[in-house]
This record gives sequence, structure tokens and C-alpha cells, in this order.
Amino acid sequence: MGTFDRFRKYLCAPAGAPLQLDISRMDFADGFFDAMEPAMQSAYAAMDALEAGAIANPDENRMVGHYWLRAPERSPAPDIAKSLTDDLGAVLEFAGAVHRGEIVSGSGAPFQNLLVIGIGGSALGPQLLADALRDPAGDRLRPYFFDNTDPDGMARTLGDIGAGLDRTLFVVISKSGSTPEPRNGMIVAEDACRRAGIDFGRNAAAVTGAGSHLDQYARQRHFLARFPMYDFIGGRTSLWCPVGLLPAALQGLDVKELLRGAREMDALTRSKTTRQNPAALLALMWHHGTGGAGKKDMVVLPYADRLLLFSRYLQQLVMESLGKERDLGGDIVHQGIAVYGNKGSTDQHAYVQQLRDGVPNFFAVFIEALDKGPDTVEVEPGVTSGDYLNGFLLGTREALHENGRQSMTISLDRVDAHALGALIAMFERAVGFYASLVGINAYHQPGVEAGKKAAARVLKLQAAAVAHLRANSDSRFDADAVASAIGAPDAAETVFLALRHLAACRRGVSLDADGCFKATVVVSQA
Amino acid sequence: MGTFDRFRKYLCAPAGAPLQLDISRMDFADGFFDAMEPAMQSAYAAMDALEAGAIANPDENRMVGHYWLRAPERSPAPDIAKSLTDDLGAVLEFAGAVHRGEIVSGSGAPFQNLLVIGIGGSALGPQLLADALRDPAGDRLRPYFFDNTDPDGMARTLGDIGAGLDRTLFVVISKSGSTPEPRNGMIVAEDACRRAGIDFGRNAAAVTGAGSHLDQYARQRHFLARFPMYDFIGGRTSLWCPVGLLPAALQGLDVKELLRGAREMDALTRSKTTRQNPAALLALMWHHGTGGAGKKDMVVLPYADRLLLFSRYLQQLVMESLGKERDLGGDIVHQGIAVYGNKGSTDQHAYVQQLRDGVPNFFAVFIEALDKGPDTVEVEPGVTSGDYLNGFLLGTREALHENGRQSMTISLDRVDAHALGALIAMFERAVGFYASLVGINAYHQPGVEAGKKAAARVLKLQAAAVAHLRANSDSRFDADAVASAIGAPDAAETVFLALRHLAACRRGVSLDADGCFKATVVVSQA
Repeated sequence: MGTFDRFRKYLCAPAGAPLQLDISRMDFADGFFDAMEPAMQSAYAAMDALEAGAIANPDENRMVGHYWLRAPERSPAPDIAKSLTDDLGAVLEFAGAVHRGEIVSGSGAPFQNLLVIGIGGSALGPQLLADALRDPAGDRLRPYFFDNTDPDGMARTLGDIGAGLDRTLFVVISKSGSTPEPRNGMIVAEDACRRAGIDFGRNAAAVTGAGSHLDQYARQRHFLARFPMYDFIGGRTSLWCPVGLLPAALQGLDVKELLRGAREMDALTRSKTTRQNPAALLALMWHHGTGGAGKKDMVVLPYADRLLLFSRYLQQLVMESLGKERDLGGDIVHQGIAVYGNKGSTDQHAYVQQLRDGVPNFFAVFIEALDKGPDTVEVEPGVTSGDYLNGFLLGTREALHENGRQSMTISLDRVDAHALGALIAMFERAVGFYASLVGINAYHQPGVEAGKKAAARVLKLQAAAVAHLRANSDSRFDADAVASAIGAPDAAETVFLALRHLAACRRGVSLDADGCFKATVVVSQA
Repeated sequence: MGTFDRFRKYLCAPAGAPLQLDISRMDFADGFFDAMEPAMQSAYAAMDALEAGAIANPDENRMVGHYWLRAPERSPAPDIAKSLTDDLGAVLEFAGAVHRGEIVSGSGAPFQNLLVIGIGGSALGPQLLADALRDPAGDRLRPYFFDNTDPDGMARTLGDIGAGLDRTLFVVISKSGSTPEPRNGMIVAEDACRRAGIDFGRNAAAVTGAGSHLDQYARQRHFLARFPMYDFIGGRTSLWCPVGLLPAALQGLDVKELLRGAREMDALTRSKTTRQNPAALLALMWHHGTGGAGKKDMVVLPYADRLLLFSRYLQQLVMESLGKERDLGGDIVHQGIAVYGNKGSTDQHAYVQQLRDGVPNFFAVFIEALDKGPDTVEVEPGVTSGDYLNGFLLGTREALHENGRQSMTISLDRVDAHALGALIAMFERAVGFYASLVGINAYHQPGVEAGKKAAARVLKLQAAAVAHLRANSDSRFDADAVASAIGAPDAAETVFLALRHLAACRRGVSLDADGCFKATVVVSQA
């Protein structure tokens, strides 16, 4: 079959949807769909159960509710439906009041900036929306982010905000309120406000679990508003709840269109006719491309500047969902699909060399906007910048195909809130389907705990080590001696690295050329 | 051997260098270095020859001269040394004159913004420097970038600049002047200037090959300055020539320190004592980690917000250099190392789940800044945000190690121009060494041409298809009919996709529900 015949045969262009999926350049054989159909039907059934409120995240004994966020009437209980509807209403009302100047900063001036303090899904989702949909001329607030616990990074962002700090609305996002990064970020932001004579609480809103540390704190400090987070919404799908919608609405983005795009894609991808279901096709192509075992990476190449952050968003959605040690039966499987990419045509000049000629360990997902927006400047007679953008995508797709590298292409009508909602929703459901195909829980993240616990051990060792040095400030010790003295002889390497960090930061410890540490007077850096 | 013993045994901490390399968490056996030493000595010899002016890029019959940029006196010819020295002087003089207000915009006002128009190395290098070293309070010009041919992306950047366009210095970077992205970007910027009554040439500088289209154009249009590009400097190492240095110097960054860091690292990594040569160790760890055959990805995790773009920079440096179909003997080898990553601790919340538990198809490179800058806010008694940042790095390193995932850690003294110069230079030389170890040419990019040629074919087909529709504007045709009519019956798919693009952009073509195209009157979008 010629490539155009294959394109026409396999193009998934659902009526009314703002996107099409072309899988013709994946090299599955004709019998592939038939062979996978029983597994796919099981995936549909599992998804039906999930949407109906089953405990789809068994390890954490939780329901998985992100699909309800765009269609509260489909929630399994009336109180959930009411809460979700009320939350959206509260977000829109709050944002509207800020835009109308009914809610103003503590100084009485209208808000101009937005500082979102969150990490993981509480940063990636808001960042994706902020960048993909922003309008320099039309946005109501200018968004900034604290998405780490890097003191230098936070100082730099505060520097960007500069004198606008008193017109900055702080949105603190943390389900438990005890995740260190947003907690630290809030403390740093509060400190900056204190030094500038700004009442942080008067300029802040919280998105958090009811009754959490942050919820209580927000109440005490008279935050402008508090919005809830639920156990049945995972961080990597929290874009659709106040986590994503509050910053977006404050910026002035069209969150209703975003939700509509997702809701409509949900309806489409409930179809059990695989060939008409783009999420099912996507999941099946992942299965084909990776051998159902993560054997290839997914390179995401949007030919649209606005989608630069989409691959970062997908890294979380796909890798945190699918990167699992065990299957649902408890067997060790080491699943996952590695995801990377930035944007075309830029990346053509970075690493398409390797994609075409080098190690064939990937398949590509091209994303394009069919309508590229106003594009009136002719760079040659009759030819525009957008024509080149389209030409580069098609040329690269062809160059990869010639060398046996597989690709899919997703064509959005345009990059707007409606299409972006549909795009993300399609990937979300593909993740759920794929998890069923390979038999894993897509909705937990047990591996993340190990790093957190190890980090807590580091901080505990650091504190004990510093206490030991201070209690013996006339002596110097190597890391082995410190570790032994604090009862952790096996942790000498960690003690060394923690104390080396403190010494480099001039935080009350010095390190000499012999590798020995000593307590010192802290040098103030303020 | 315990981990701390292994750490002490293998830590590479060259005296006076602003970085250390810890390879102890890579699981090479003790005999590995001995086994690789003959190959490594060959790599040293090849690098010596390269630095002495050999044709190290045989396919393109070119010398490879980026090391001379930080030590012109080591150039193989006095005229090269003089040119490189003069170029740096000219960059610093031009930037100084702009900063002192001796060179002002056409409107007479001092420049406030910088719009860099380039792609590939002409964008990634300047972007990395701009973001890693920027200082909101101290920067002299605010940088913006056109790094694609997306009309919407360019319009958005112009929107960001807004009314500041008349105080914007345009830096157009293109070796040939005919690479479409920067050429299109310049035309779009010029158009915006024309509409705003601004004389583009009076506000522009060019970095380009002597005598190129762009060079001639810049002369005709009386650009403020022209800076040269040389054939012996590849795009992915052009950071060290005016391509990277001019934007950086204009922004107010310390380019001399950047060059000093690279020059000192070059001196260190000329050592033929492998265990003391961090670039050699890095290359050997790549070889160990990937089996010398790209079998694992390199996940780059800088725990420093300022290094967010470093993995994108490395994607080009590593993947374009190493992603090759054939070795130097002409045998098909499909080499390469896939690179991805953003920053920690952020990425812990995105995909460390997969790294720890999922498909073990990677090794990690942690990067940290030992001195994290002012960090005085205590988030708990005696504990700062930076302590958490350090704890998360160590915790994640440990969590990966527990599950048999390998990692290296690069510790910078701090993120400044000096250390960044050293860091990049270390990776550059590691790329060169690794290419020797696996026997490939690291300095060409033959696979990129295929995509460019295919793109040119698309634009040619598009033009012919449009001409056919216009010549028969009373009829409608499907893509097969158009393709046949223009003498390209095998290109019906490309014709369809090109015309679909035009139809979606309302560019004089309509597409009906039957898949047929028709010429229409162009709807103006201006």
C-alpha cells in the first residue's frame, strides 16, 4: 500500500473534534488491530469502571476522578458532582472579582502579577497553560512560578517581579501543605513580603486539601481565598481542578473552553470502536512502538512555539503513570516510556541528526497546528514563515520514514484552549488504556517516596553532624569521625556531602584541604 | 568497597577547577580503565591533532576550531589567531559602546532590548547563557529570541517586546544567510519595524560568514556592525565566537570569565592521565553506560534553576555530534546517546518514578552548585531551602542507586560564567573523546540535509499545486488529481498535506468534505 493510501486508511479524524491523529507512519502490520482488540476491549471496560467510581488506584485505595472534573454530572456521587461544580464556580468568581478590581491587593492597588507556588502537577500544568495560551496584549495578570526549592531560583524570580511584589497575588498549591518545595517557597515569599512591608496573607490564595496544614494556615492568616484538592485527583491530572484552573483563570485564559475540549474528547474516547477512538489508537501505537515494554522512547515534536512545554507535561503524565516496577499481579516488569522533546523546527537543528541517522531507539510524535494564525509576511513570493514550518514538519517526517524511523502526527485545528483541552485529554486516556494493556496501576507513584525518605535522612544526618561540630567547635573531624560520633558510621559519605554543601554555602561549617570539617561562625549573606 | 571508599577513590577534583566529577555511582569494574586505556590514548592523540589544525571533520574537509576560540594563541596559523582575537575585541567594544550609550537606536534612545534571530547553535547557546547567567537587576539589555519559523511564535515575541521595539537591538545570526529560519525571522522583524516606522538596519547587527547573503545585506542596509563566522566553527560549538558572545556581552554577562573557564578546562583535559582528566572520565562513563552503542539514554538533572536549559544545549552538542549512521570506516553503526532532562528537584515530581522503578534504559548525570548563593531564610530551625535542594539530590541519587540505576554527579563551585564555561568545555571534549572511542566523525551532520531537502520539495510541490488550482479556479480537485496534473503523481500525500495546511490558514485554498481543493480569494489576516 502506498503511503497516501495508508494515510487515508488509518487517519483518525473524529467529526467535530479539534484534532486528527495520523498513525500511518507507524509500521504496524494489518492484523495488529485484530490481535489487540480483546486487550483493548478489556481496557475499555476498566476505563468504564474507573469513570463509574471504582477503586482504580488499588495500592492507594483511591478512586480516580479527573474525568469528572470536566463533566461533574458523571461523578459517582451527587456530593462529588456538587463540590466539583461549586469549585469551578468559585474559581471563576474569584478570578472575575480580581479582574474587575473588586478584590485588590493589601496595598489597595489592583493585582498585576501572579506568583504560583507549587511543584509537580501543581507547577507543570499551570506552566503549560500559561505559556501555551498566553497573550502578551490581553492577559490580565502576568504569571511567575516558584517550582523548586532552589534559593537562587526563587531570588531570581523575586528579582523579575521587582517592585511589583505588592501587586502580586500569591497562589500556594499543595495538597498536604507539607510537601517541602511549596512550603519552602511560601516561606521565602512571605519573608520577601515581610521585608517589603507587605501582608502576605492579604495577597494570597491557597489550593489545598481541606483541613491540611496549608488550609489551616491560610485560615489563620486570612488568605483571600481557599480552594480544595481531593484525594481522588492525582497531581499529574490536577490541571482540571483549581490547581490548574485558578492560575489560568487569573491570567485571563479561557478555562471553560479548555474544559469543553477535554469533555468532548472524553465523550469521543469512550467509543469502543477502536479505529474511531484516537486515545485507543495512541495507546496501541505506544504498545506497538515500544513492544509493550518501554523498548523505545517517545520523542514529542510540536511544530508550534506555544507547545514547547508540552513534552515536559507529558514526561510527568506518561512517565510517572507508566514507569512502574510491578504489574497489577505483583510481578516485576519495569514498565515505562521515556519521553522527551522540545519543538520543531528548532529541534531539527539540535538532534534530528541522531533521530534520522543514529541509534533507532525511539518513535516520534509530531504535533502541528493546521491554522497557524496570522501569517501575512511573504518571505519569498507566495511563501510564508508558516509554509516553511509546515514544510519542515513534512520534510522531517519523510526523512525519518526513509530511514525506517516511525512517527505519528497529531494535527490540531489551532493552538487554543479548546484544542489544548482535547489534546491533553486524549493523552490522559491513552495513558489509562496503555496501563490496562500492560497490566499496571497508572495512578500511583510508589518510587517517589524512596527519594523523599532518603532526602529526609540526609537532612537528619546534616542536623546531627552540625550539632556534633558545634559541640566540639575547637576540633576538626573527617566525615568518618563525624558519622561515627553521631551513631551513623555507615553514612559517612552522606555526612561528607551534606557538610561539604554547608561549607560551600558558608553555613557554619568549614572544610579544609585534608577533608576535615570544623564548626565556624556563620557568615551572614543578607 | 563501600560507596564512600569508591567515592574517594574515583572523585575527580582537579586543583583549581571550578567543578568536580563523581563517577562512583557508575558500576564499572575495577579493570575498566586499564582495558580502555589504549583506546583512550588514541583519543588523546586524535584530539591533539584536531587542536593542531588537522582536518578533523573529513567529510566536510574542515578543521575543527572551537578550542582556539578560548586560546587564540593555540591556533594553527597566525592569521586565524589574529582574527579570533580581533573578533573578541570587536564584540567587547561594540557591547561597551552600546552600554555607554555611544551606540544608540535609530530613534536616538538607548537600547533596552535585544532580539536574537537564529536557530540551532545560534539560538541554544545564546539562550543557555542568557538564562543561566542573567541578573534581573544588573542586566544591561533584556534578551528575546526568534528561534523558529512559527509566525505565531514570532508575533508573540513581538507582543512581549511591545512598544519597546524602537529600543530593540536586532542580532541576526546565520552563517550562510540562507538558512530559512533566521532569514524568515529577519524578514518578519523587518516588517514589524517598517510598520512601526523603525529603520531596521540602524538597529541591527549581523553575525555571519564573510561575503554571505546576510553579510552583503547588512552592508547594504548599513547595519550597526557585522561579525564573522568561520567554516571551522560548527554551530553546536559556536557559543565561544560572536554567535554566543555578542548576545551575552550585550546582555552584560561576563564573557571573559566564560572563556577563562573553558580555557582552563581545556588545559586540564589535555592531560593524558585519564584518571585526572574529567572529560576523559565522562567519555569513558558514557562508553560504559551505553555499551559504546547508545544502549542507554543520558538523563541530565541539574539541581539548579539556572541550568534548566543545559539539557537542551547538551541535546544538540551530544546528539548531533554522536548520532551517526556510519563510523569513520564507512560501516553502518547507528551511534548516538539520547539526552533529556530539565531540573531537580522539579523533575523528581515528574518522572523520577520511572527512573527508579521503571524501564532501566538510562544513566543519570546530576549537576549541583555547591555554593547555592544567598540562602538565609530558615524554613525549619537551622534548615534552608538550599539544604532541601541538596537533600533531594542526594536522596534521589541514593534511591536510584538502591535500584541499580547508575549516576554521575558534577559539582560546580557555583553557577557563574567561569564554572559554566568549564562545564560546557568539559562536555565538548568528552564528545570529541567519545567519538574517537567509537570511531565516528563528531563534527558533521549529514542527516540534517535530508529533512531540509524534503522540506524544499514540499514547498516546491505546494507552489506548483497552488498554481494549478489558481489556473483552474472554477474546478475542484482531489490531491491525486493535483499531483498528477503537476507531474508528481507519487507525491499526492505531500500535495494533500501542503494544501490542507493552506486551507486551514485561509491562504487561497479551500478543502471540502470530500477531500477536494479549490482556489479561493485569500482572506487577509492583517
